[in-house]
Amino acid sequence: MAVYTDVSAEELAVFLGAYDLGGLLSFKGIAEGVENSNFLIETERGRFILTLYEKRVRGDDLPFFLGLMGHLADRGINCPLPVKAHDGKALRSLCGRPAAIVTFLEGVSYRRPTPTQCAALGDVLARLHEAGKGFHLSRENALSVAGWRPLVEKAGTDADRVAPGLGQAVARELADLEGHWPRNLPAGVIHADLFPNNTLFVGDTLSGVIDFYFACNDALAYDLAICLNAWCFEADFSFNLTKGRAMIEAYRAKRPLNGAEIAALPILCRGAALRFLLTRLVDWLNVPPGALVRPLDPLEYWKKLRFHQNVEDASAYGLVA
Amino acid sequence: MAVYTDVSAEELAVFLGAYDLGGLLSFKGIAEGVENSNFLIETERGRFILTLYEKRVRGDDLPFFLGLMGHLADRGINCPLPVKAHDGKALRSLCGRPAAIVTFLEGVSYRRPTPTQCAALGDVLARLHEAGKGFHLSRENALSVAGWRPLVEKAGTDADRVAPGLGQAVARELADLEGHWPRNLPAGVIHADLFPNNTLFVGDTLSGVIDFYFACNDALAYDLAICLNAWCFEADFSFNLTKGRAMIEAYRAKRPLNGAEIAALPILCRGAALRFLLTRLVDWLNVPPGALVRPLDPLEYWKKLRFHQNVEDASAYGLVA
Repeated sequence: MAVYTDVSAEELAVFLGAYDLGGLLSFKGIAEGVENSNFLIETERGRFILTLYEKRVRGDDLPFFLGLMGHLADRGINCPLPVKAHDGKALRSLCGRPAAIVTFLEGVSYRRPTPTQCAALGDVLARLHEAGKGFHLSRENALSVAGWRPLVEKAGTDADRVAPGLGQAVARELADLEGHWPRNLPAGVIHADLFPNNTLFVGDTLSGVIDFYFACNDALAYDLAICLNAWCFEADFSFNLTKGRAMIEAYRAKRPLNGAEIAALPILCRGAALRFLLTRLVDWLNVPPGALVRPLDPLEYWKKLRFHQNVEDASAYGLVA
Repeated sequence: MAVYTDVSAEELAVFLGAYDLGGLLSFKGIAEGVENSNFLIETERGRFILTLYEKRVRGDDLPFFLGLMGHLADRGINCPLPVKAHDGKALRSLCGRPAAIVTFLEGVSYRRPTPTQCAALGDVLARLHEAGKGFHLSRENALSVAGWRPLVEKAGTDADRVAPGLGQAVARELADLEGHWPRNLPAGVIHADLFPNNTLFVGDTLSGVIDFYFACNDALAYDLAICLNAWCFEADFSFNLTKGRAMIEAYRAKRPLNGAEIAALPILCRGAALRFLLTRLVDWLNVPPGALVRPLDPLEYWKKLRFHQNVEDASAYGLVA
């Protein structure tokens, strides 16, 4: 949530010379995105987002992310469309960092989405999964079940500094998920981080899906599980069945869930909760002293995890049999 | 250069209900301004800047700043125009902070302005001084000569930690300026912080003057001295006479300088250099450990000060006799 690289108007004007975007009318560093530097720029051709990719994004992954956005935008998903320069390339370099320009999307991100907005999310998620078919690149999910044990080891015994008993709870859940994680569900390209702050709405219309920098190939229903975690709990961590039903039913209207996916939904939700619990835990334990950015609370996802551990089947999320 | 207060779309939508601005289409926290939280918002009526005033701006001063922007905008200065709510008030409250919406201005800030851009600055500065006449509020300059001794005392013996000899150089300069500071120059409303990053350009056209949060009443020529310091030195701290001449002559074309102002220009430039040297020095000595924002280098202004100490008269800045 900061601008890490300072770009001058003079440098940006030179950079824009490689594009067919006309003269520069304004640019502002914006507080957005996961550890990248983002600028809202306006040229004679309209508004765009310029991103400079900082250390946390691997350069090798950028063709996947940018190519995916182009693939999805071409298939009717409202996502940022990478802008190609005169030489046909969307991925360039600015101030020593990989950099790309994408189209600007209107809309605002809600903190507390309504059931109507949860339905809009279910609809776009299913359409995104369908539209992802045929994308020619693939990217392994580094934060799926095989990636969780290294995070548990990184947190180590410090987990109990965050909350007594957390270390043991995480270790036990991980062992159980490793033993029972579903392996043969329908798979494809997933967003993998489709939280409310990565969607834009104008009123109740979902006007944009953004921030594809965790996108990867994995079970499609796991993406739905991530969204159920991110969108359907209230501030007191009770699960809102109305929101869950709205999301799942809108999803199924565009992409039916098969029996294996429905049966797996509770364990996928547990996995999704553990995944965000673990990355938040590691971030929490590694805050530099004096940092301005407060990390997200890992315990929110422990509470969500405990809800999923007591779920018997997908009806608990609102799925209509 | 950060967003200090997190505003949700839900809170902003409620806030906008007090205005006649239509529905909210987008908003982004922007990395801009001196320790305030700024958002670029777009509504059905256009684009605006929303500012939440954080601790460093005194609430009592806000009617002066907002009133001044309205006064200047009404008189043809391209500056942000505070937007009044249904009840006629521009100063409101959001997330527990004083807050105001002003119009958005196009343009970008250059780091290294050209002589043509320096002339554009001189022109708008003189017009701003003329337009400020008749503004019904006034505000003392807390950072004029009487405000410098407290800063010297705050830095204390630590100044030499930044550079050997700095403490003594600052003390000697302050004593000299206190003894010889000109008292009867034409005075009025000054911007007092009109650095290149507080101006917007579209090409060579100065499209906006922003950030009035140091504006106050003081000698008009002191404002010109601040701009000569901020605009006319090269990266190696040599003074660019071409830029100085362009700025001064464009200024004089709109507001003639009298003999006392011309004679005082060297000492006003020394004062302006000491003022920014001192505030940067105090900030430099008080950086919290681990802070993300690197303070501006006070030594730049020591170098500029030494240039001014060797100036014999205003011709050294390019003034044509």
